[in-house]
Amino acid sequence: MEVEIGRGKKGRRAYGFDDIAIVPSRRTRDAEDVDISWKLGPFTLPLPCLASAMDGVVDPAFAIAMGKLGGLAVLNLEGVQTRYDNAAEQLDRIAALPKETATRTMQDIYREPIKDELVARRIKEIKDGGVLAAASLTPQRVEQYYQIALDAGLDVLVIQGTVISAEHVSSKVTPLNIKEFIADCPVPVIVGGVASYATTLHLMRTGAIGVLVGVGPGHACTTRGVLGIGVPQATAIADAAAARIQHLLETGTYCNVIADGGMRTGGDISKAVALGADAVMIGSPLAAASEAPGRGYHWGMATFHPELPRGTRVKAGVKGTLKEILAGPAHENDGTLNLFGALRTSMATCGYDTIQSFQKAEVMVAPALMTEGKKLQKEQDVGMG
Amino acid sequence: MEVEIGRGKKGRRAYGFDDIAIVPSRRTRDAEDVDISWKLGPFTLPLPCLASAMDGVVDPAFAIAMGKLGGLAVLNLEGVQTRYDNAAEQLDRIAALPKETATRTMQDIYREPIKDELVARRIKEIKDGGVLAAASLTPQRVEQYYQIALDAGLDVLVIQGTVISAEHVSSKVTPLNIKEFIADCPVPVIVGGVASYATTLHLMRTGAIGVLVGVGPGHACTTRGVLGIGVPQATAIADAAAARIQHLLETGTYCNVIADGGMRTGGDISKAVALGADAVMIGSPLAAASEAPGRGYHWGMATFHPELPRGTRVKAGVKGTLKEILAGPAHENDGTLNLFGALRTSMATCGYDTIQSFQKAEVMVAPALMTEGKKLQKEQDVGMG
Amino acid sequence: MEVEIGRGKKGRRAYGFDDIAIVPSRRTRDAEDVDISWKLGPFTLPLPCLASAMDGVVDPAFAIAMGKLGGLAVLNLEGVQTRYDNAAEQLDRIAALPKETATRTMQDIYREPIKDELVARRIKEIKDGGVLAAASLTPQRVEQYYQIALDAGLDVLVIQGTVISAEHVSSKVTPLNIKEFIADCPVPVIVGGVASYATTLHLMRTGAIGVLVGVGPGHACTTRGVLGIGVPQATAIADAAAARIQHLLETGTYCNVIADGGMRTGGDISKAVALGADAVMIGSPLAAASEAPGRGYHWGMATFHPELPRGTRVKAGVKGTLKEILAGPAHENDGTLNLFGALRTSMATCGYDTIQSFQKAEVMVAPALMTEGKKLQKEQDVGMG
Amino acid sequence: MEVEIGRGKKGRRAYGFDDIAIVPSRRTRDAEDVDISWKLGPFTLPLPCLASAMDGVVDPAFAIAMGKLGGLAVLNLEGVQTRYDNAAEQLDRIAALPKETATRTMQDIYREPIKDELVARRIKEIKDGGVLAAASLTPQRVEQYYQIALDAGLDVLVIQGTVISAEHVSSKVTPLNIKEFIADCPVPVIVGGVASYATTLHLMRTGAIGVLVGVGPGHACTTRGVLGIGVPQATAIADAAAARIQHLLETGTYCNVIADGGMRTGGDISKAVALGADAVMIGSPLAAASEAPGRGYHWGMATFHPELPRGTRVKAGVKGTLKEILAGPAHENDGTLNLFGALRTSMATCGYDTIQSFQKAEVMVAPALMTEGKKLQKEQDVGMG
Repeated sequence: MEVEIGRGKKGRRAYGFDDIAIVPSRRTRDAEDVDISWKLGPFTLPLPCLASAMDGVVDPAFAIAMGKLGGLAVLNLEGVQTRYDNAAEQLDRIAALPKETATRTMQDIYREPIKDELVARRIKEIKDGGVLAAASLTPQRVEQYYQIALDAGLDVLVIQGTVISAEHVSSKVTPLNIKEFIADCPVPVIVGGVASYATTLHLMRTGAIGVLVGVGPGHACTTRGVLGIGVPQATAIADAAAARIQHLLETGTYCNVIADGGMRTGGDISKAVALGADAVMIGSPLAAASEAPGRGYHWGMATFHPELPRGTRVKAGVKGTLKEILAGPAHENDGTLNLFGALRTSMATCGYDTIQSFQKAEVMVAPALMTEGKKLQKEQDVGMG
Repeated sequence: MEVEIGRGKKGRRAYGFDDIAIVPSRRTRDAEDVDISWKLGPFTLPLPCLASAMDGVVDPAFAIAMGKLGGLAVLNLEGVQTRYDNAAEQLDRIAALPKETATRTMQDIYREPIKDELVARRIKEIKDGGVLAAASLTPQRVEQYYQIALDAGLDVLVIQGTVISAEHVSSKVTPLNIKEFIADCPVPVIVGGVASYATTLHLMRTGAIGVLVGVGPGHACTTRGVLGIGVPQATAIADAAAARIQHLLETGTYCNVIADGGMRTGGDISKAVALGADAVMIGSPLAAASEAPGRGYHWGMATFHPELPRGTRVKAGVKGTLKEILAGPAHENDGTLNLFGALRTSMATCGYDTIQSFQKAEVMVAPALMTEGKKLQKEQDVGMG
Repeated sequence: MEVEIGRGKKGRRAYGFDDIAIVPSRRTRDAEDVDISWKLGPFTLPLPCLASAMDGVVDPAFAIAMGKLGGLAVLNLEGVQTRYDNAAEQLDRIAALPKETATRTMQDIYREPIKDELVARRIKEIKDGGVLAAASLTPQRVEQYYQIALDAGLDVLVIQGTVISAEHVSSKVTPLNIKEFIADCPVPVIVGGVASYATTLHLMRTGAIGVLVGVGPGHACTTRGVLGIGVPQATAIADAAAARIQHLLETGTYCNVIADGGMRTGGDISKAVALGADAVMIGSPLAAASEAPGRGYHWGMATFHPELPRGTRVKAGVKGTLKEILAGPAHENDGTLNLFGALRTSMATCGYDTIQSFQKAEVMVAPALMTEGKKLQKEQDVGMG
Repeated sequence: MEVEIGRGKKGRRAYGFDDIAIVPSRRTRDAEDVDISWKLGPFTLPLPCLASAMDGVVDPAFAIAMGKLGGLAVLNLEGVQTRYDNAAEQLDRIAALPKETATRTMQDIYREPIKDELVARRIKEIKDGGVLAAASLTPQRVEQYYQIALDAGLDVLVIQGTVISAEHVSSKVTPLNIKEFIADCPVPVIVGGVASYATTLHLMRTGAIGVLVGVGPGHACTTRGVLGIGVPQATAIADAAAARIQHLLETGTYCNVIADGGMRTGGDISKAVALGADAVMIGSPLAAASEAPGRGYHWGMATFHPELPRGTRVKAGVKGTLKEILAGPAHENDGTLNLFGALRTSMATCGYDTIQSFQKAEVMVAPALMTEGKKLQKEQDVGMG
């Protein structure tokens, strides 16, 4: 499937969500008969949904609300929550920044050091809400903070960077040996992001219970423009799903593929599963919940890089309650509310009753369709009184 | 023709109307010599055109006007006409809704129950106009209402859902057995929508006289965004046409392929036929007739779903009389008036004289052309004083 | 090169000018050494350029100016010039029409009958200017008017319809037998438009000295939207060029391929030649000449069809004198001035010195490039003070 | 990899930067361990970056600033700096031109003859700054001015035209024999632009130390629109890289491939290297430096062609200091600041530590991704308060 870009270079053709459409099978089902639960290591979760470790999306209160609805929110242990005792004050400040100076001021805000005490306190706040506590660290800071988080009651650790590999090379420091770390870690570990078959397979072999698939697809991320790096999500998920099969054949262990970023609607989430994902990690759609800490804004972890920022503070607005966004009912028809009711209906309409059977759904490559659809919707928005 | 989306997934490349252009043959004809009539079971209809079962498009008066012009309008038996004695009042209300609350209020309006008496009365109103009466029901409600409709004089029954299959699975209710139902039904039955070779073939085997082809292509439908499901119409029609041939070989019976949704202009209708359709079902273009009940708006059956609305109230405006839209004369040049004069001229220009011969016309895949054309038209609209 | 659109239908992938880029060879030349002249039957013309038979482009005065600059203008013998003694008055009226009623009023204006006397007078006016006189008729009217035109001094006859074929079928009238007509016609005949190998070859066999290639590509034409018919010009020209070779092999006669429509810039004209054209017929770019009769507007012959109009009155503006548009100098840099200086420079830059050698230039399929370029230019237009 | 455009013509499918994405490998690195230096003949340069020979980008002061930061600026020896003693006055004038008359007035400004004395003075001004002096001449003027430039201390000569070939054909003058010229020239020579394997190979055989790859891709260039000529940069660079290997095999000499034009962001520069470039030549991104002589504008060498201008005066604005643009820190996140910090991070993220190893990085063809990303960014710009 490689095409020749020029005499000296070939490349695979890759596809994004907008290039893909799901094809109904010859069977239909009742939506009530569809089961969208999934297993994450020892836990069975009703909704195949993680909330992204972004400061505009997850704080302890949001994590509790998310857990009670059946999902799992991941707290960013390197964000405002662990740098500031009064995180709300900084979130107010960020929401009020004028566009021109937003990046520069956020660089300043994130220069404040992380406090051990706050790492522990935020985890405890989540646990006190009676839900699972999940939190993320970058590979460079895992060893410094993970024990504090564990002691505070952490249930799931997420090790996450823009791009992560099982083999980091450095002349200055000894990098985290993910495989050894996971072997010793008493709680399940999710790692990412990755975007290729080989890296997914290597990371699955570290013993992780899930791999985050996605390099640069998220809506608050400008990695593609700044670095030129990125794999469209449809291809990345399908590649990772193939690595999961290979890993299952080799080890007998099923490792979760979690599509991370680039999904806006219930249709995108349905496509992620139809392409092979077990669950999705979403940020932008949840930032529009009235419970989200971002006050209508959100931004990624690379936004405030001191020398090479590559994210954007995105205006998400407020579209409804978290419950309305995750499980409905919807009073809008653009696909951004009742996301998992949509997944359930999509599966029923196509005749599938479990996440794992829906991963085998037929899909088509249909780019014109999607752009046409979007263009149209925009025209309607403009055209209507 | 499959492409590899990623290691774990392949998909066919699919095409929409905008990707397709019809190629003239080496012969031309007089438009007067072209015959665009078609047979729908026992009926021969002058225009290969059905009006969609949408509340903004078809009411009894519109159905009569449509029938007199040679087409066939399908009344939605689950819409405002059968829920409200004074349907006009609700249509006025919908047209006046502000955009922000339109979906929510329509959800309320459609909570009113369907009345048996109104089902019968609306059918009779159409019959009193001296034309064929066609009406639609969803599979879930066929058994409850079809006998009332038949008793009132129904000529053609349309069984229609977003996606329909010959094999619906439910743990709670016994689904309609379409094959058994049709065998016993005294009037011809059309079923849909479908979007694949296999499902079309299965539905043709139920004894239906026509299959509606189209999942999510219509202009008032956001199924693609909300559910991720959809097959571009050019591919869907060509697949269904292949199923029709297979069914003809197996049974000796010719079952009609009716392209449903996604057509805006005479060019789109011509392409639908050139790709294999026997007739088209259109909503948006007819909603712009001065006779349409929607007062310049229209919306689909999924718009008012109580928990997962996936349609939009679209502003259609008023472009002319129904006669001008169907048969001209046109005083605009954007392709939305004199739709079937355009089909006739397209067939003549390409050298074909019947619907069935035009189904064999040469087509090209020519995406750039189409977008360029549209872009240009927009620029001209802006550029002119 | 066919792709499967669906199970029942295949189609060739077709390309337009925007999909194509010319590739420099390993040689470069001086622009002064490039010869862009061509032969049209007995005539050698300095510029490979015909002006379209459109009322907003060609009147007798324009035809004289065009001839003096080395090109050949084609007068529409069925337009305002032959319907009205005082054509200028009607052209003033058209230019002043408000957008909303333009099509309807033009339908009225063109209901006025053609006068024999005016057909003769307009040809004589051109001949009195000391240049070649070329004029166009539709196949239906050739027999009625050609003798009048010949008697008045016509040098080149153009037989032109939206789509023309060597085999028109009619139940009511005996169509023009183009082959017999050309055999008896004392002046050279050009026919068109065509858009396929087979039809081009058939028309070449009628004895025409040139074939107009283009169905629906022009900027004042909405044939694609209204009828769904159209072949992107790059593919149409290359197909016609292949027919020219076949015809040359069969008969020893070289028949000209004239690209008709869809060209806006010197780059588009260069591509038409690189794809195989001997000359181009252009309308929109010349309508922007201060000498053009359209007062800054132009429109095609199908714009005023009484029942199915399929053209648009396009605002062309006034960009410069005809000499500046054809041969420079240019004081704008968007490619719409000095069109044939651009062709000369393009040929020199790529290393070719005659039209026929440039027809063999290497081209690439490079769609992204072109849209990017255009998008950019638009942004610059907006961005500059 | 050729596609059939029509029966008479085939062409390769070509790709631009926007069609390409870099794929992370299974290894990651520290950005501090990455070496982005390169060798240009006898010189080792810390930044793989040349500044384009454009009057809005390079004057002697800018060349000194650029050299001190590790790059190499190329002075245009046929621009305002060598035509006017007081070049600043003309640059002020150009920046103040209204859009309507900009091209025409620039044609006048560039009619002023080049002065030998100024050629020498500008080179000396650069040398007095303590950096390497590089300057460009068109092939037609090399013999007239190169000795003056050499005598003034020139270190690197750039011979540059829109398209250059090793074999220029002229009936009037004896063209520059590049091969003989380079053999005798005491300083290293770079030549360009080229856009094909064959021409690159021919030019490498002339003894040049570097070849500029790019015909018409730059942001201030309308060659594609005006002439129809152009090769998308991804394909052009990959073709040139293949020629470099062939030349290395034939001669044992490594000749540099310098991607010239079409790059806006750190992502584009990273892609250029991943496709095979040793270094990049950029204009637009540097024109936005506060040190750039264009006062927020820039324009190419073909903008002021007396008869066929094919460039545009582009508004670049002022985005930061030259140091911020080249090496950061960035306080914006759109990829236009810290361009070479971005290259370094891109290489580290993908696991590569030298320019030559990064040239072997895996890339994908992923068009949808890129347009989506750009569209999104625009929406965000609009959407934010």
